[in-house]
Amino acid sequence: MHTPSQTRLRVRYAETDQMGVVYYANFFVWCEIGRVEFFRQLGWDYKQMEIADDCHLPVVEAKCRYSAPARYDDEIIIETTVTAVRTYVIKFSYRVLRLAPDGNQLLAEAETVHFTVDRQMQKKPLPEKYQQAIRATML
Amino acid sequence: MHTPSQTRLRVRYAETDQMGVVYYANFFVWCEIGRVEFFRQLGWDYKQMEIADDCHLPVVEAKCRYSAPARYDDEIIIETTVTAVRTYVIKFSYRVLRLAPDGNQLLAEAETVHFTVDRQMQKKPLPEKYQQAIRATML
Amino acid sequence: MHTPSQTRLRVRYAETDQMGVVYYANFFVWCEIGRVEFFRQLGWDYKQMEIADDCHLPVVEAKCRYSAPARYDDEIIIETTVTAVRTYVIKFSYRVLRLAPDGNQLLAEAETVHFTVDRQMQKKPLPEKYQQAIRATML
Amino acid sequence: MHTPSQTRLRVRYAETDQMGVVYYANFFVWCEIGRVEFFRQLGWDYKQMEIADDCHLPVVEAKCRYSAPARYDDEIIIETTVTAVRTYVIKFSYRVLRLAPDGNQLLAEAETVHFTVDRQMQKKPLPEKYQQAIRATML
Repeated sequence: MHTPSQTRLRVRYAETDQMGVVYYANFFVWCEIGRVEFFRQLGWDYKQMEIADDCHLPVVEAKCRYSAPARYDDEIIIETTVTAVRTYVIKFSYRVLRLAPDGNQLLAEAETVHFTVDRQMQKKPLPEKYQQAIRATML
Repeated sequence: MHTPSQTRLRVRYAETDQMGVVYYANFFVWCEIGRVEFFRQLGWDYKQMEIADDCHLPVVEAKCRYSAPARYDDEIIIETTVTAVRTYVIKFSYRVLRLAPDGNQLLAEAETVHFTVDRQMQKKPLPEKYQQAIRATML
Repeated sequence: MHTPSQTRLRVRYAETDQMGVVYYANFFVWCEIGRVEFFRQLGWDYKQMEIADDCHLPVVEAKCRYSAPARYDDEIIIETTVTAVRTYVIKFSYRVLRLAPDGNQLLAEAETVHFTVDRQMQKKPLPEKYQQAIRATML
Repeated sequence: MHTPSQTRLRVRYAETDQMGVVYYANFFVWCEIGRVEFFRQLGWDYKQMEIADDCHLPVVEAKCRYSAPARYDDEIIIETTVTAVRTYVIKFSYRVLRLAPDGNQLLAEAETVHFTVDRQMQKKPLPEKYQQAIRATML
């Protein structure tokens, strides 16, 4: 199995809610950060995919299972992998962990499914160079 | 089948992203608004559930399938139903629609699963009065 | 003095933070809602200003003085007025109040200053029809 | 003059709006990150200030002047200084810059004023150890 892309962030005060933990929807913001870093670690820039290749990845399905809360100022690791890639579809899988000296703690597992579209939201095949490089991460 | 609880909102500029549509994580914020209004339409106040009954509903699972984008200033309808209620678990189902003169358009369908816990995030049974009233909506 | 435009909203769980009150940056999201409703109550649609007139209003200055916290589920009133309008500049003033049976409570007072620009962020005069109608609210 | 505390972040997709730039309220979220890092660089943990010292810093005034937009994936530098500290009040000043190989670009300048309060939002003096260390940064 390949190594997932990793990225880190620190929980912002703005991301907490009055229960004293990170508001659940913010985990999907973190998944987006994981996706962008997945591409960057392949040598690409999602910004350039949008501008140069007119290739956008709207989310068509998103899910998350939460096993423990994230709290203000926690250091968070997002592990991102691609679990499927087809002409018009990419599927990402994420593990959200809390960095801890005595072993990282799993906070959530998530998945997102994306279509590949152009600026006008019309289906458009994912350019072959991306498909190939992504497949290489799945071996 | 019972009638779902309905609530309306208007898309905020802050909720859009540079693709010109509502950022996907914000649909989960809307689901939360749907849940709160579901309770209000049963005659309860989620705020009071937290304060008076020390009953909190953290999300343990959330998913959404997106079928069409929401755009700035769209009028949105959230339809919320409870699809399962057990001692420690409630499951909500949502339909997100765009209000349109010629028939509302389905934008997304979502589900959230919640545990019932106290302030210290310890499992705690959902008070019987809530269980009964919620079950009555499921007939 | 003219009557300010009024709009209402209810505090979302997502808008609170772990101090148990609304996170301070969210008051600026509410100001945006006030601005949009100010235009709607003049008979315009900010969405159409952007699309039909290619007229955008980026914020160049924003400030807020907070006098009392907003809390989850509070009903909030945003009062919006224009305090200055020039060829390329509009200045809005806001009062944020908590609806209360025994008299509304002032939570915050804010101001935003906006330039008028086109899609490419180049300065562009505010169309005369808007200037005139806005001035009429200032009499 | 002392050196301001510096922290970096990368613009998230979620932070953009349909104008293709960072939504204005998000600059205040970045200021909060600057404040937290200011304390961390003094050897403190704002989390611990809240928990151990029951010392909270709600914002009573916030303002920002925007000179250029921030865009998706930009690398941002937040420079934070304290410009005044009194028994119950701290005033922070921020510069938000876009990292650029040919010289960083100033995007915005902001200020926030905070009261020091306890958990119940009652005024409480800023502990002397914080006052002294903060004053040392102002020499």
